[in-house]
Parts: sequence; structure tokens; C-alpha cells
Amino acid sequence: MKYSVFAVVLLLLSGREAAAQNAAPLTARLDKVSLTFALAPNGQPTYAVQYGSKIVVKPSRLGLALAEGPGFEGPLELTGSEMSNVDDTWQPVWGEVKNIRNHYQQLTVHLRQPQAPNRRLDVVFRVFADGVGFRYEFPRQPNLTYFTVQQELTEFNLPANHKAFWIPGDYDSNEYTYTTSRLSAVDTTPIEAIQEKAAPTRVQTPLMLKSDDGLYVNIHEAALVNYPAMMLNVDTRTFGLTSQLVPAATGTAAYLQAPEHTPWRTIVVSDNAPAVLASKLILNLNEPSKIDDTSWIKPQKFVGVWWEMHVNKASWNYADTSNIKLAGTDWTKLQPNGHHGANTANVKRYIDFAAKHGLASVLVEGWNVGWEDWANNWKEEVFDFVTPYPDFDVTELQQYAAAKGVQLMMHHETSASVTNYERRQDAAYRFMQAHDYAAVKTGYVGRIIPRGEHHDGQWMVNHYVRTAQQTAANHIMVDMHEAVRPTGLHRTYPNWLANEAARGNEFNAWSAGNPPEHETILPFTRLMGGPMDYTPGIFQINLEPWNPARNQGKQVHTTLAKQLALYVTMYSPLQMAADLPEAYEQHPDAFRFIEDVPVDWDDTRILLAEPGDYVTIARQAKGRDEWYVGSITDENARRQEVKLDFLTPGQRYEATIYADGKAASWNKNPMAYQIQKLKVTSKSTLKLQLAPGGGAAVSIKPIK
Amino acid sequence: MKYSVFAVVLLLLSGREAAAQNAAPLTARLDKVSLTFALAPNGQPTYAVQYGSKIVVKPSRLGLALAEGPGFEGPLELTGSEMSNVDDTWQPVWGEVKNIRNHYQQLTVHLRQPQAPNRRLDVVFRVFADGVGFRYEFPRQPNLTYFTVQQELTEFNLPANHKAFWIPGDYDSNEYTYTTSRLSAVDTTPIEAIQEKAAPTRVQTPLMLKSDDGLYVNIHEAALVNYPAMMLNVDTRTFGLTSQLVPAATGTAAYLQAPEHTPWRTIVVSDNAPAVLASKLILNLNEPSKIDDTSWIKPQKFVGVWWEMHVNKASWNYADTSNIKLAGTDWTKLQPNGHHGANTANVKRYIDFAAKHGLASVLVEGWNVGWEDWANNWKEEVFDFVTPYPDFDVTELQQYAAAKGVQLMMHHETSASVTNYERRQDAAYRFMQAHDYAAVKTGYVGRIIPRGEHHDGQWMVNHYVRTAQQTAANHIMVDMHEAVRPTGLHRTYPNWLANEAARGNEFNAWSAGNPPEHETILPFTRLMGGPMDYTPGIFQINLEPWNPARNQGKQVHTTLAKQLALYVTMYSPLQMAADLPEAYEQHPDAFRFIEDVPVDWDDTRILLAEPGDYVTIARQAKGRDEWYVGSITDENARRQEVKLDFLTPGQRYEATIYADGKAASWNKNPMAYQIQKLKVTSKSTLKLQLAPGGGAAVSIKPIK
Repeated sequence: MKYSVFAVVLLLLSGREAAAQNAAPLTARLDKVSLTFALAPNGQPTYAVQYGSKIVVKPSRLGLALAEGPGFEGPLELTGSEMSNVDDTWQPVWGEVKNIRNHYQQLTVHLRQPQAPNRRLDVVFRVFADGVGFRYEFPRQPNLTYFTVQQELTEFNLPANHKAFWIPGDYDSNEYTYTTSRLSAVDTTPIEAIQEKAAPTRVQTPLMLKSDDGLYVNIHEAALVNYPAMMLNVDTRTFGLTSQLVPAATGTAAYLQAPEHTPWRTIVVSDNAPAVLASKLILNLNEPSKIDDTSWIKPQKFVGVWWEMHVNKASWNYADTSNIKLAGTDWTKLQPNGHHGANTANVKRYIDFAAKHGLASVLVEGWNVGWEDWANNWKEEVFDFVTPYPDFDVTELQQYAAAKGVQLMMHHETSASVTNYERRQDAAYRFMQAHDYAAVKTGYVGRIIPRGEHHDGQWMVNHYVRTAQQTAANHIMVDMHEAVRPTGLHRTYPNWLANEAARGNEFNAWSAGNPPEHETILPFTRLMGGPMDYTPGIFQINLEPWNPARNQGKQVHTTLAKQLALYVTMYSPLQMAADLPEAYEQHPDAFRFIEDVPVDWDDTRILLAEPGDYVTIARQAKGRDEWYVGSITDENARRQEVKLDFLTPGQRYEATIYADGKAASWNKNPMAYQIQKLKVTSKSTLKLQLAPGGGAAVSIKPIK
Repeated sequence: MKYSVFAVVLLLLSGREAAAQNAAPLTARLDKVSLTFALAPNGQPTYAVQYGSKIVVKPSRLGLALAEGPGFEGPLELTGSEMSNVDDTWQPVWGEVKNIRNHYQQLTVHLRQPQAPNRRLDVVFRVFADGVGFRYEFPRQPNLTYFTVQQELTEFNLPANHKAFWIPGDYDSNEYTYTTSRLSAVDTTPIEAIQEKAAPTRVQTPLMLKSDDGLYVNIHEAALVNYPAMMLNVDTRTFGLTSQLVPAATGTAAYLQAPEHTPWRTIVVSDNAPAVLASKLILNLNEPSKIDDTSWIKPQKFVGVWWEMHVNKASWNYADTSNIKLAGTDWTKLQPNGHHGANTANVKRYIDFAAKHGLASVLVEGWNVGWEDWANNWKEEVFDFVTPYPDFDVTELQQYAAAKGVQLMMHHETSASVTNYERRQDAAYRFMQAHDYAAVKTGYVGRIIPRGEHHDGQWMVNHYVRTAQQTAANHIMVDMHEAVRPTGLHRTYPNWLANEAARGNEFNAWSAGNPPEHETILPFTRLMGGPMDYTPGIFQINLEPWNPARNQGKQVHTTLAKQLALYVTMYSPLQMAADLPEAYEQHPDAFRFIEDVPVDWDDTRILLAEPGDYVTIARQAKGRDEWYVGSITDENARRQEVKLDFLTPGQRYEATIYADGKAASWNKNPMAYQIQKLKVTSKSTLKLQLAPGGGAAVSIKPIK
């Protein structure tokens, strides 16, 4: 990746004489977006953001409190600043588009404590056409080497009582449904905590906002490395948001060594919702790939011994014994419960299915000892990641999969005992290599060990990044579940294919489920930071047949056609065909879409989108003149018109439309679908009729 | 190890009818020691200990508070009890004596909460001729599986205002000088904290006590595994001691899973001080060796590139640059400071010296990158344990040492960043094996990471034990510095040769030093738990010559002869000849004792001992009819008469006496010594004249 930094590097101010200049605000802008930095009358640094004439962020405080004496709570003096412009284009290893333009104006301000110890702080702003990113930088300096960020003081003062799409600021989980409310009505109190109860007005990022005057604003962060995740405390009276860093076990936030910098704080803004989804601001603020040879990184679809556990047809655990200790248990002596999913014969069935349908991999959960007694005990020694259950023959399956041209995908559930995992990661990856596993799904269910740390704190953030690095060093792709929500680091570590880090499809199997609007909000929130392993593709919407006794009344809260549309609307280079082979075998015509749909793209068009209501996206297959359209709606039926003007003019195509059946609806008739084939050109318009909680998926292939 | 449990397994009480029996105390006894268990009128379990007619411990509370609902704060009901006797003899892999008798009467009491959830707790007492051990056991039961010990409620109510030898209850360091005071005068307030300030009356174990009626009592613990270390809060008015478990980062004490048990709480008692030093009670309460093949475990003497750093002649660090980051630093580009100790040529000098004098190993500290900026920054990535400095040639030294028949000893300073060490231990031990290192000295200087954990908390206790296991699995011997004080686990893991875990000789180089009485107290305190790597053998007592500018007025607070005596009085299978080769080369006659003295013994006789005053010990070399005597005193000159009646009757021996010079004293003339050879038999008596702060060492070899 090469930046071409051209023109204007202006040294506006420098040295001690700068103090007198404190009153002069500094502005950077690109197109409609402008950023103004100023020192407030009390000497505290502030920034403000506008979109055209509309206020995005009112003057808002910048700063950090340190544990070691005077920090950057202000007042500070401005000792200098620089401005520069960058306009370049780069290619991701995989992604939604082939080329990404990185165009911004950068303003760097140099600040200093006016009194001894005269510690220095820089703030770097990058102003893009679709928003602003800024971060704090701590230059190398005599009086600040090792230090502790007690709290970050960054504010986002919003001008009005926007509509917000939010989840509670749980430090350990983001697996919540979204609440849509005015900022004044943010209140996490009635929401049942997944892990730790959040303060009443603390919410997570990405936070999606919509103003009454038509602005769409998304607040998040980019390149979260060696720092805790940022949550936001909402002032429900003033509509100010204040950053709240996830604390360490000690109660402080971040242990740093200068030179160092924080992640970027990001504000994506537009007057239209699709532009928010199309924004590459967060990716642009991440570092280029640190992996030189990426030939082994392969976006892919997979099936897995997984959903059958969720629907109570099989179990992760081999025995039903409880109170097991990892050390000293003779696993061959346990009494098998007779419905362990990860048995050799069953895994072969999935391998056969993947081979037949051209899916790359088979994930197997519950293959390794420890599942009898794994969750919620805050216990350190749960899994060893290398010992299979007696009924899972690693070598036989390795040979069987290889013969069929399928790869097995490893599963490392850590039960959040991360010290235990870290001790064993080396050996676990060696085991993977010895048995031809090319990808691992990790999991962090439960309370973190080291005890007192949080999933979203600095220590764990470092663990996730280290795991991305360590897997990369072993040529292993990784998909993290229950990790901190992503911030674009898949640009830097493209082997980090996906994360969960939100409420996935699995909740439809165990709980009140995900409301039909859920998948229309996720692209505006969770997916702003990176791909999600949402596990779409459930065909057997009604879960009762799998286990009538235990699944009474349970169903996925979408239509079948919407499950197909998710492969397009929920971008990920790693997509599961999550249902059971026997479910797919009932619907080979619909399954054809899953066989066809790519996981890597040359182009993406956000056609229609409104958070909480609908999303329609068209994507062009990597290296092929094929397009795929996904269209989804919330609980309301909708007719969506899709102009196909992105197709190559003059070329004729066959569109296959996988649509909701006439009388379909997510709650009454979810499995009704219809498949229609049409001849189309770039002049055609598709009229997609979406059922309540429904969707449509379309493949468009050229007619040779 | 085979126990022969003979006779008497009595089921005294059982079942629910037991409740009525609560009032009947149960007593176990052996020789003069008796232990009585009783339920107090309020239902709380209590115990008391007597030695003959003298009270050792008055009725004292037993119990534990749990975080999960009702714990064992009492009242409890007694549901049964058993009594048994054991009398057996076992052989340690290495040690002070060849055979160890394990003779005790055991009383097990079964307790239960009288109300739901009716949780059960056992207390097991073992009564030896020289004291009592007891522990809590949590049997497998339906209503107690995973649980958290909030605090242990064990009390040791002493009958009077004993004299105590104590150090402050710092959760992270035991490197204190001992204060000798009445219990009523315990006050840590004036003592400068090494790491974390202890509560005013919190002290550490082993706590040595002496009563006015002539009892010597030592309170400690045995087999500390999966539990925090126990400190003691002293009630200075009642002379009651209450256990204080070192807290986890979360503030609670121990995370356990039943079935489980606590370490043994130990009370060694005698009416004579030597019997305390001779006690094998703590070893007997530890599990037999878990290592089957121990042929690779070799007690040994070593020299090291180490003291020259302490005396400011060389440095651990290669450069004087500060603010270094482990990742991304090009170590070859650093400017060497010119006095880096661990350079290839200097290490060869130590190898030559070890080879010439028959010492097994050479420790090298400062060989690996990271020392520029390692301590006290609470930073996670400090050392990687596999990257040597540019001037340390691993392969060349490996070959050089092998050719000379000497082994290099590895050094792993973790800077207390234990998560970092654990991630890298596998690779570090592979590196050691690849380069023929057979032993490692580990260090834990600084504040622990995971942040919030303590050196002596459960998480770190588990780390030390895991490290002993992991090194054993790699056939590596280990010597831990700054770890929790030992509790006899070297019986179970005989590759765990030694610990520091007290204020070692090194303090004489940096601080006010160790007072002359220090080494007369250590055997009664720290050494009760196991061997100490005290690093004796400093010949150049006055440190000024090494670096006149920086060492002004610095000296070791003993005579030279006392340094020799420490090889006998401070038992360890791992003994350093800590001074520089050039210091030893000045005194080849005195060095002869260090060459001769064994590190493994067939027999040990504690001849004279009084804590804080003097210690004289004779030991018989392993497998040879040779004896070695060490005799040390505090700041007072003393004449010690040593009857040699332990020698083989009729055999003539030559005794070589390394004694203080006529006018020697630790502070005025510490290096004056004299060496005398005598013919002796079992009827002889040696008259050793010890200077103030002095000592004498004697080798006694048969005349063929």
C-alpha cells in the first residue's frame, strides 16, 4: 500500500509563541464534511463537525485523564499544527469492492500542558467526504513514558434528540437486540443483562443515529489495538455522549507506553442511509495488511455440526456427567449419552454434503473433551484443544475429508478462560496443522479469566489481535465469537475473516429470538466494523420437528427467502450454510442460491436502506460478470423496486429470483417461497415483493 | 511411596443421629502432642492443641466463608468422624536425611450445615510427635460444586504474649528482615514496603514463636496448591491469629471445584529449638513425588554472571537506552554500554572457573534482550526468553561448556508479567533443550500481570505449580525467585530444587543489608517450607573495590567464615558460589570448603539452635562417611562446643576448620579467617569460636 501524500503540508504554528494563537480555530474539510478544532475559553481542546450547514457534533471536549499526575484534562496550549491531503486507492485482499478510495484531509494539532511536566499530546483528525476520524497520539517525550489512561474524556455532543439504534453497554457481551428510541429515552434498566448489567444510559458502538433533519450519523472506532473498547454514556437531557472505556481488572482503562496512540474515533455522516453502509472510512483508518503472502486466505462457505445442537437434536457433550475436571478424567470411561453430535459418522455425513454441494469446509463443534461441564463456572481448566472425544476419530476424518476435497474447520471454545487458551495456543495450532485444519472458530463464552478482566477491555483486545497474528503466522484463518466487536482490523489481518460480536441467528433457536427488524439494523451498527458470522441459511424455520418436546413454539423469525437474502445483505467472506443437511435436502431448488452465492466481491451497490426497516444490496461476484441481490424487510411487507442499471449495458442476463411465497409471513407462513427466472438487462427493474419479516434473493448471470 | 495404614479405622459416629453428639470433643494425640476438636456452644467447629500439659493453641475457630450463599461460618453439625494411625518411612529424591519417618494419628471430622442446602465439610487432622497439620476437605456433594472461598476463618489463638519472629504480610514480597517482638508489639507501620504495604498487624508465615514457658511454635502451611497463601492477622491484645488469604484480583480468595481440599495448616511445636529445625512434618504432609524417573535431577553447586551486576561491576542490560519496546526493536542497532556482563568472553571465564573447581553449572543473567527497560513499568511484553543479546553467542557457549563438562543454567526473568511468560514457556523450554540447558532460574520482580493478581494469590500459586510440572515434563530443574514461599512441594516435584522467597544475600549489596542475626532466623521461618537459594559464599565482603564510586561503605554483614558456614546451615540442593571468580582466586584455601561441601545428605543433626542467636548443624554427605558442620552466630561472638559423637566410633577423621580470624568481626574485620586441621574421632569435641557476625565451617573426612 502506498500513500501519495501530495501538496499542502503546512506548518501553521510552532513553538511557544503559539500560546497566543490559542483562540484561532483550525478547520479541515472535504466536500460537505468540515471539522473544527478549537481551544475552549477554559483551555480544554474541543472539536466540532458539520455536514454542509448541518451540525453533526457541537463543540465537544477532547482529552484523557491519566493515573500518573496531571493528564490531559486541560487546559492545554496549542504549540503547532499541520494540514495535509491524501487521495489514494488500494485493493483489499477480499471484500465488498475491488478498489477502495482513501481520500481525506488531515489536521494534526500539537498540544502541551502549560505547566510542568509539560506533557505533550497530539490529536490527528482525518476528514473524509463521509465523515471524520480522529485519534490521540502520545509522542515520545521525557515526562511521559509509561502511563495509565484512567478515562478518556472524549465527547460527542449531538445537536438534538436523535433517533438512536442502541444496545446496552455490557462490557462483556453485545448479543442484544437493538432498541430504537430517542436519545432522551435511552434506558438499559428494563433490559435483561447477557453478562454484566450496564449503567442505565451506557450504550455500545457502533451507535447509529438519525436526526429529524435527515442526517444519518454513525459513531464507532477504527483499529482498536492495545486499548479498551469505547462505550458511550448518553446524557438524556443534553444529548451529549461521553466516551466510557471498558475498565481493566484494576479499574483503570489502558496501560500504555509512549510513543503510542489510541484507536480512531469515527463519525460517519451522510444525508442518505445507503451512503453510511457504503462508507469505507473505518477500513481506510486501519493499517494495510501486515500479512505478505495472502495466497492461503480463502473466503469460503461452510456447513457444520452446530445447528443440530442448537435445535436440541444433538449435544456438544459426549456424556451427561457433570462436575468434570479436565485433568485426571478418563474420557473413555464416561458413559456416552448417545446423541453426541461430533461423532465420526455424523461428521462424514456433513463432509459428504459439503463435497456434493461445493462448500469448502465443515465446522465441528463438540469434538474435544470438556463439554460436560464447561460454561459459567469461571473455571480455568476446561478445554485442552487437542484431545478428541472417544467417538471422534481425528485421523480418519482428516483422510476422509481430504479424499472428498473438503476441509475441516477447527473449533476452540475457550469458555472465556483465556489464560488457559493462551498457554495452549501453540500446541493447539500445531495440532491443527498436523491434521490439515486451515481455519479456526474461537469462542469466549462466559466470564473472562484473568478474573476481573472484560471481553472488551485492553487485555482482551490485545489477546484477539495476538490471536489474529499467531494464527496468521501459522497460516490459519480465524473467526472469533464473543470477542469485542470489530473495528476494521480485517484489513490489517485479512486472515481474521469474521467475528460474531452481535446477536446472531442462533438466538432464534434459544430465546425470544431476533425480531424481524434485527437484520436491517445490523448493517448500520455491528457490520460497520467488519464481517459477521451471522450463520444464515436456516430453511427449517419451525424448529419443532427437530425435537418436539423441547422446541415447542420455537421458530426463526424470518421467512425462508429472507434467510437467502442475508447472504448478500450481511456481508462476510465466511458464510455458513447453517441448517442441517437433511433440511437442505428438502429444498434443493432454494439451496441452489446458497451454492451459487459468492463470498468475495468486485463491487457492491447499496440500493435501498433504512435502519430498522429494509436493506437492499446488489453485489458483483469477484472476477465474474454475475450479480447477486439481497433484499430484506422488517415485520412489514414491502415492495422494493431494484433498477438493474449496474449490469453491463447490452448484455443479457438470466435473473433467478428467490422470493417469499404469496401468502408468506415470518410468523404465519415462513417457509413459503417461490423461484422465478427472468431475462433481464441493465434497463430492467426488478419488483421484489417482500412478505412481513421476509426477503428476496436474486442471482443474475449473463446469458452466453 | 506406600503407606501402611494399620489398625484402628474407627467409625465413631455417623448419620443424622450425630447431631446430638455435638458436645463431645474428639481428641487425637501422639507422644506429647494432643489435638482436640469440638463444636463450640454456638455450633462453630473449633480445635485446640497441647504439648504435654502446655497449651499451644487455645480453642480456636475453624471455618470458611463462601461467596455462594451459606458457607461454613457455622453453626455446623458433626455427622461422623474417623481415627486412624500411620507409621511409615520414605526416602526423598534428595534432602537432608536419607529416611523420613511419617508417623501420625489422623482424625477426620464430618461436618454439615444443619439447614438447607446442608453443605458438607470435612476437617482432617494429623497429629505428629512434633506438631499438628489440618486441612479442610470439600467432598463431592450435590449442593457444592463450583464455589468461591471468600475468606478462611481459621484461628490460632495463642495462650500468651509470645516472642515472635515476623515479617510484614506483603502479598507480593517476603524480602524483609525479621522483626523480633512480642505479639503485642507487632506493627508493620514503620517498615518500608517492598511491594505493597501490609495491614498494620498482618504478618507472614512461617511464623516462629517462642513462649515464656519454653515452647517453640512454628505456624505455616504444607502443600500449597490451587489456593492462596495464608497470612496471619495478629490480635495484639488477645494474641489470637486469624488466617488472611491473599486475595485474587476480584477481592475474593479462592475459586474451587469440589471435590477439593485446602493446603494443610501446620503447627510445629517442641520444647527445644533444634527439634523445630529437624521437623519433617511439612514434608510428610506433602504428596510423594509425581515424577517417576528422577535420574536427571541433580543437586548441584553453581557459579554465575550475577554478583558482578549486584556490585555494579557489570550490567544486565546491553545498552543504556531507555524506553524500549520488545517488538520492533533492532537489538543489533543499540549502542552497547561496554559493561554488559553476559558477554561470550566473560561467560567463558565462568565456565573455565566452574570446570577447574568442579562446579556443575554456570548461571548467566542478562543474556536475553529486554533488560534496558524491564522493571517496575507493569508492562506485559518485556522479555521473549529466546532472543540473546548480540554479544551472547548461544551456540558457541553451548559447545564451549560441553567441551569443559559444565552446564549452562538458564535465566527467565519474567518481570512478573506472567501471562507473557506463560504464552512463551513452551518455546522457551524448547529453546533450552535445543541448547542443553538443564535448569532454569525464574524471576518475578515487580507487579503481577494479570494486573490485580498477587505473587501469593491462588492464580500465581497455580502458575508456580504448573511451572514445576511443565519443567519436569521437559526434564528441567527449576529455581524460582520472587515466588510464593515454599510449603514442602519439593517432595512432590523434586525438580523444583529451590526458591528464593525471602531476603537473600543480595540485599547486602544494595541496601542496609541483612543484619547478622538474619541467617539464624531464616532456618526457623522461611526454610521450614523448603530450600532457599540464598546465594552464599561472598568472599570479597567489602564491596568497594568492585566499584569505589558506587559501593562506598557497602559490605556484606557477615564474616567470610560465616559465608562458608551457610552452605551447611542453610540447606539447599542448589547452592551458588555467588562471588566472582577473581574473588575466589584470592582465597583458594577458603574456597576449598565450597569445592568440598556436598549439596545432598544422608543425615543431619541440628546441634545447637536458637532463633535470632545461633545455629549449628552437622550433616553427613550422601553415600559417604564425611561430615560437614556449619555454625553461625548473630552480632554476638560465641563459643560453640560441638560433640562429634555422630561420627563412626573407632574411625579416625581429619577435620578442617574454617574459622573466623582472631580479631574478626562482621563490621570491623570481616575477611579475617583461619584454617586449621585436626585429627578427630567420635569422642572429640570441637570448640568453635565465632566472631561477632561470624561463623565456622568444618569438613570431617575419614583418614583411610
